[in-house]
Amino acid sequence: MKTQIADQKLNGTSHEEIYNRAVKVLTGGVSRNTIYRKPHPYYVASANGSFITDISGIERIDFANNMASLIHGHSHPAIVEAVTEQLKKGTAFTMGTEAEVSFAELLTSRSSGFEKIRFMNSGTEAVMTMIKASRAYTGKPKIAKAEGAYHGTYDYAEVSQTANPGNWGDIDHPNAVPLVQGTPQGVMDDVVIFPYNDVERTLALLDQNADQIACVLIDLVPHRIGMFRASSEFVEAIYNWTRKNNALMVFDEVITYRVNYAGAQDSYSVKPDLTALGKIIGGGFPVGAVAGKDEIMKVLDPTEKILRHPHSGTFSANPVTMTAGRIAMELFDEQAVLDLNALAMTARNQIEESIKISDVPLSITGAGSMFRIHLQENAPTSYREINQTKAAKTIINELLDYLFFEENIIMINTLACMFATTLTQNNVDQLSEALLRGFKKVKPMIEQLS
Amino acid sequence: MKTQIADQKLNGTSHEEIYNRAVKVLTGGVSRNTIYRKPHPYYVASANGSFITDISGIERIDFANNMASLIHGHSHPAIVEAVTEQLKKGTAFTMGTEAEVSFAELLTSRSSGFEKIRFMNSGTEAVMTMIKASRAYTGKPKIAKAEGAYHGTYDYAEVSQTANPGNWGDIDHPNAVPLVQGTPQGVMDDVVIFPYNDVERTLALLDQNADQIACVLIDLVPHRIGMFRASSEFVEAIYNWTRKNNALMVFDEVITYRVNYAGAQDSYSVKPDLTALGKIIGGGFPVGAVAGKDEIMKVLDPTEKILRHPHSGTFSANPVTMTAGRIAMELFDEQAVLDLNALAMTARNQIEESIKISDVPLSITGAGSMFRIHLQENAPTSYREINQTKAAKTIINELLDYLFFEENIIMINTLACMFATTLTQNNVDQLSEALLRGFKKVKPMIEQLS
Repeated sequence: MKTQIADQKLNGTSHEEIYNRAVKVLTGGVSRNTIYRKPHPYYVASANGSFITDISGIERIDFANNMASLIHGHSHPAIVEAVTEQLKKGTAFTMGTEAEVSFAELLTSRSSGFEKIRFMNSGTEAVMTMIKASRAYTGKPKIAKAEGAYHGTYDYAEVSQTANPGNWGDIDHPNAVPLVQGTPQGVMDDVVIFPYNDVERTLALLDQNADQIACVLIDLVPHRIGMFRASSEFVEAIYNWTRKNNALMVFDEVITYRVNYAGAQDSYSVKPDLTALGKIIGGGFPVGAVAGKDEIMKVLDPTEKILRHPHSGTFSANPVTMTAGRIAMELFDEQAVLDLNALAMTARNQIEESIKISDVPLSITGAGSMFRIHLQENAPTSYREINQTKAAKTIINELLDYLFFEENIIMINTLACMFATTLTQNNVDQLSEALLRGFKKVKPMIEQLS
Repeated sequence: MKTQIADQKLNGTSHEEIYNRAVKVLTGGVSRNTIYRKPHPYYVASANGSFITDISGIERIDFANNMASLIHGHSHPAIVEAVTEQLKKGTAFTMGTEAEVSFAELLTSRSSGFEKIRFMNSGTEAVMTMIKASRAYTGKPKIAKAEGAYHGTYDYAEVSQTANPGNWGDIDHPNAVPLVQGTPQGVMDDVVIFPYNDVERTLALLDQNADQIACVLIDLVPHRIGMFRASSEFVEAIYNWTRKNNALMVFDEVITYRVNYAGAQDSYSVKPDLTALGKIIGGGFPVGAVAGKDEIMKVLDPTEKILRHPHSGTFSANPVTMTAGRIAMELFDEQAVLDLNALAMTARNQIEESIKISDVPLSITGAGSMFRIHLQENAPTSYREINQTKAAKTIINELLDYLFFEENIIMINTLACMFATTLTQNNVDQLSEALLRGFKKVKPMIEQLS
């Protein structure tokens, strides 16, 4: 590793030089907006466990884990070994492999509602397939989703993802706001937007579309809405409503499956009809999946007399992803989940302490092994409460830059952390101490906010 | 390898046993419909070059190459070596890597219209992003696509993919037929269906929706329509129409990019505004990409003042796919493309000879390194001409089974071959001879068709 970094320097490659090449061939110089930072992205040489070394040889602690997708950090030896073996046997075939069956067995054994599963290549594909399967099963066209919730890049799933005070409309009837310019009006017409955790308003909105709703889509700990938990009351109300109205309750657990051994859904008494999975279940490789009730999953079954939802995917269930995913999830066993959640809770407590010491009006939300810091004294309880002002975003970027450049700490650009089992108490101490210094640094800016 | 297969046998694992486990956890026992065959799928132990060995130790020649995605067959040593190295350095980061820049440089240098590129995880995501970008750029909601064409699983792209005589309607106004049950009517309303290669009718249909069409989507050698080439006249007519009507001409080259060094588009005088890529550019790993004009790709640029098309992807541009893809495409250089196309042409000629010798009313279509055999004497020139009867499908399955079980040859289930550079003249001889025997075997059934 050292040698290679030395080589990179010898070759004279700098972040700026790579970016100067990048802007000529990638629009905006990036293929993923999330890696962009001013004045340019930083490039990785190698990574191991919870440490990423960039091409300048700077090592940082990684609390982002590729947007929550690496539950065991980078280059886990068991995954590297197994995938290295699989590479020699091929990566994709127009035939089956035992790897997909073994992994399906593991995941279906983990969560009681996962009677059957099907794999795809991304969380976006998983949510899209889940919505299409819901329509195929119910024969109804509309979906209901929460204002502000992120569910990937399928048009229907991204309606009102970034709704703002200028366009979100009355809370009793939130507007369906397109994310991408030029989104057909037909998409907005088929999406019912509700305010998350607001039982009364949500039920009223669902009732107004009762005949047409195929599914109600819920993320149980929605990152962009504020990363707080769905209330049991809310989930049960949705469940009861869907039972009465021939609709499905479907969960997007692409991010939240890490929260308990059996997913965030394990914290609730009622279970979803279908669940979309992704991120950590790929063991570091592209993945998506839909799991749920046998009777509903049958819409995808090619052996049925009428195939209601033909579905294909060139790389779906490829043996590299299946092998890496199985090993990652085997290692993320019940004890590993509890240990990781405990470490994340310790981190939250220490960060709360840093907030107190620095005397800044900040709050923290989260669940299991993930949390998010908010630039507001009271933790948000709804999307519309999150401070989304330009000034707040400037402070967040200032803090992220401070952590990245001065403290060698990587967080997600919403000020969130997604823990990996490779993190230690020592790393957590470094995080809370770095944040304490960071909070003090941006304190004057935060005080000007209010 | 031998040892491992012996182990599998010692362990007593059979295809049937794996499938019996599979049906308990995967709907229909498969995660991809394409691997299903009666009575059950067959499972791979390992693969190398153009040979796949199943768990019973049977070796077959692979002419399918994971649905056209492996241009160098299985486990190419250069790809295995480079990916093995990358694994040790990590597979995904919330930061950039030089791998995405180097690969973007290679692809943009290959095709003159690829001014900028962005990566994603599948061909489905590529076509979806291309359609959304077209809407964002033009501000218009509709797309136009060909009846019978396959473009992945995004609803809009799959309208009329399996239209049949019972629902396709008048050729002058083909119906927009949903593929998945419960597809919202709004989707069909925003898709204009045209008959491929039919200039007059297509222009008339486009004219009727001139104000609303964001893009006209074309596969230049559409597999499901019949795998024949778009006529220059047709492509030029679409190009001219889109220039006059503030619409984009966009190509789905997920499958066809292999046809020339610069893609199937290199055979035409006019170039598309955007191109969707996938399959072979991933070097055996999940991939998708959209490439095209700088001015249009800017809708995805996060450094623009207004980001018209926010787009993300957890595993997009991951360094494993980028590294494998770059090596695969470097090796698929101008000479390699010519050599592979020549070998495929030899195969076509030899198969034509087998058709003559066996005296069966069959035809063959294709381009570059891919071809498809049709159960009709005259090669189809339109989707509506393809023999889609149940009897025809039964014969195709009979022939595929004969090849698979008796001749140890794997073809795609439309009777298509997608060549890889690891195939040899010897393999081609085996194919044409096996087909000759197969044709003779199904001849009585074919004769009953007409």
